[in-house]
Amino acid sequence: MPEFRQDPITGRCVIIASNRSNRPRHYDAETELVYSLECPFCEGNERMTPPEIYAQREAHSGADTPGWRVRTVPNKYPALEDYGRWSEADPGIYRTSPGVGVHEVIIENPRHIVNIGALDENQFVNILRAYQTRLATLRKDRRWRCLLIYKNQGEAAGATLEHVHSQVIALPFVPKEVSAEITGANRHYRSTGACFYCALSQTESVSGKRLVSSTERFVALCPFAPRFLYETWILPKNHSATFESSSDEDIFALAHALRNVIIKLNGALGNPAFNYFIHSLPPHETAEYQYHWHIEILPQVAKAAGLEWGSGIHLNPVCPEEAARLLRETPA
Amino acid sequence: MPEFRQDPITGRCVIIASNRSNRPRHYDAETELVYSLECPFCEGNERMTPPEIYAQREAHSGADTPGWRVRTVPNKYPALEDYGRWSEADPGIYRTSPGVGVHEVIIENPRHIVNIGALDENQFVNILRAYQTRLATLRKDRRWRCLLIYKNQGEAAGATLEHVHSQVIALPFVPKEVSAEITGANRHYRSTGACFYCALSQTESVSGKRLVSSTERFVALCPFAPRFLYETWILPKNHSATFESSSDEDIFALAHALRNVIIKLNGALGNPAFNYFIHSLPPHETAEYQYHWHIEILPQVAKAAGLEWGSGIHLNPVCPEEAARLLRETPA
Repeated sequence: MPEFRQDPITGRCVIIASNRSNRPRHYDAETELVYSLECPFCEGNERMTPPEIYAQREAHSGADTPGWRVRTVPNKYPALEDYGRWSEADPGIYRTSPGVGVHEVIIENPRHIVNIGALDENQFVNILRAYQTRLATLRKDRRWRCLLIYKNQGEAAGATLEHVHSQVIALPFVPKEVSAEITGANRHYRSTGACFYCALSQTESVSGKRLVSSTERFVALCPFAPRFLYETWILPKNHSATFESSSDEDIFALAHALRNVIIKLNGALGNPAFNYFIHSLPPHETAEYQYHWHIEILPQVAKAAGLEWGSGIHLNPVCPEEAARLLRETPA
Repeated sequence: MPEFRQDPITGRCVIIASNRSNRPRHYDAETELVYSLECPFCEGNERMTPPEIYAQREAHSGADTPGWRVRTVPNKYPALEDYGRWSEADPGIYRTSPGVGVHEVIIENPRHIVNIGALDENQFVNILRAYQTRLATLRKDRRWRCLLIYKNQGEAAGATLEHVHSQVIALPFVPKEVSAEITGANRHYRSTGACFYCALSQTESVSGKRLVSSTERFVALCPFAPRFLYETWILPKNHSATFESSSDEDIFALAHALRNVIIKLNGALGNPAFNYFIHSLPPHETAEYQYHWHIEILPQVAKAAGLEWGSGIHLNPVCPEEAARLLRETPA
C-alpha cells in the first residue's frame, strides 16, 4: 500500500505510491474528441472505472451507467488508501507510516471535454456541488485532518488523463501549505482581532491594482507575492471558513466567478495548463474566525526550476499588478 | 529593478523580475548542434553576453574572446541586481524590498553541448572549479547571506537556453529550503552531538538499499523521502560544511561521482530533464559542525501538480529503494 515518508532533516512529507507508476497516460493536447473509446471518464465507459461513489444523474438511470452530469469514483491508482490506522512507526532515523487516506476523482462532464472553460455556468454549478457534497461527506469521517480538492488541467500541470476532472484527497494530518496558512491567519487574528483574508479582500477591492473581478459575493485577485505567472485567487467577500458550508446562492455566484477567471486566463494566455485547489478550514481545526476559504488558480506557463526547488523562492517575471490588468482587460 | 515580495500569510518569498519576461528562448531539444550562430553561449559569440566575470582560458587569450573552457558572465536578464541596500520597506500589510543580489551564468563548455553528461571528467573538474571560485569570491561580500549554484537541464526542468550552463545566485537572506536544513541539522546535533548528514552517509552505506554509488570520498544515494522520481543526492563522506573549501582531490573525486550519477540517470531514464543544486553552509552561519554540504539532483520526469502546490506533499510513484537499484544496475 502507499506510504507516507518524512524527510528526517526538513520534515518534508512525501507519499510513495508505487502502484501509480504504471497508470495509463491518455494525453493528446492536440485533439479535443467529443467521445473517446479508450477514455475511462467518457459516458458509456463507466465500466472502466471503479464503482461510482456519488453522481448527479437523470431520474431512473442506474449507478455506473450513462445518464450522469458529474460522477465521482475512487482513483484507480490511489495515492492513498482508505484502510489501516495512521500511526507513526519506525522510531529510528526515518519516519514512515501507512498511506491511509482517500483519493477520488470527480469527472466533471460526461462528454470528452478537455478544458473546463468550455463548460457552461450550469455545469460549473454541478461541479461545485459535487465538490461540496464529497467534502461534506468526508468531513464526517473523524480520521481525516485535511481535505483537498484540486484540479490539474493540461499535461504541463501534471494531468495524465485529459478528460475534465478534479481530485479529492483526504489526509490524516494537516500538510504544510495548509498549516502555514492557518498559522499565519491565527497570527494576524491575534494581533488585529480580524480575519486576514477579509482584510485582503477589502484592501484589494479599494486599491483595485491587483483586482481581476469583483461581484456581490466574490473577489478574484492576483496575490501580492505570486509564485506563478498570472496566479489568481478567488475569495468570498463575506467571512467563511469552510467552502462546504456555502449556500446555494454562494455556489451560483462562485460558478460565475470561477468560470469567468478561467475564461479570462484562457483568453489572455491561450488555454494555459493550470492547477487550482480549494483551501478550506480542515476538520478538527478551530480557526473558524481566523481562517477564510479560497481557491488558488496557478497557471503553469513557466517551469519551476533549480532556484525554486533549491531555495523555495519562486521567480516570477510578471508582476501581479500587470497580470491583473491584462486579466481585467480580457473579455470573459 | 527586481523586487523581493513576501506573502503576508505564509511568509513565502518570491522575486518579481519583470525584466525577465522578454528574454529569448532557444530551446530545441531535438537538435544537438555543435555550433549555433544564435546561441549566446557558444564560443565565438562572446559579444552576445555581458562582459565575463571569470573564465578558464588558454594563455594569452583575451577576455570575451574564444579560447576558454568555462566562462562566467552576469545573467543578461538577472533575477537580482547587485546594487542598492537590502531593507525591509513598506510596514503595511505587504512586505517588499529591492531585489538586491547577484545572478550569474556559468557556461560549462565552449561548444554547443546540451547534455552535461556528454562532457568528460576533466571538463567536470573545470566546471566544479568554476563553481568553487565564484562561491569563494561571492562569500567575501558581506552582504550575501546565501549562495546557491543550480542547474536547469532540459526544457521540462526550466531551461530556456539549451547550451550547457549553470547559474549562481547570491541572496541577502537565507531562503526557506536552506534554512529548514540548517534548523534540522542543528536539532539533530543538539540531540545526538553528531552531524545528521554524516550519520546519513554511514547508515545508507551500511544498509546499501538506497545507495547509488560509493567511492573513497563521496556517496550517492536516493533519499528516504524523495520529492521526485529518481531523486539522487551526493554527499562527501568526510564532514565538510562548505563546498567551497573542497580540496583538489575532493574536486577530482566529485567530478567522477557527479558525472557517474548523471550518466546513470541518462541511461536509466533516457536523458531526462533535471535540476541540481549545491547546498553549502551559507556565509555568516555558524553551523560548521552541524551542517554538511551536498548536491541534490532532481530529475523532472513527472510534473508537480495540484496536490504538490496545494499541500506541499510530493507524490512519488517510485520508491527510492527501487530507484537506487535501477541506478546501481545502470552502467556509467
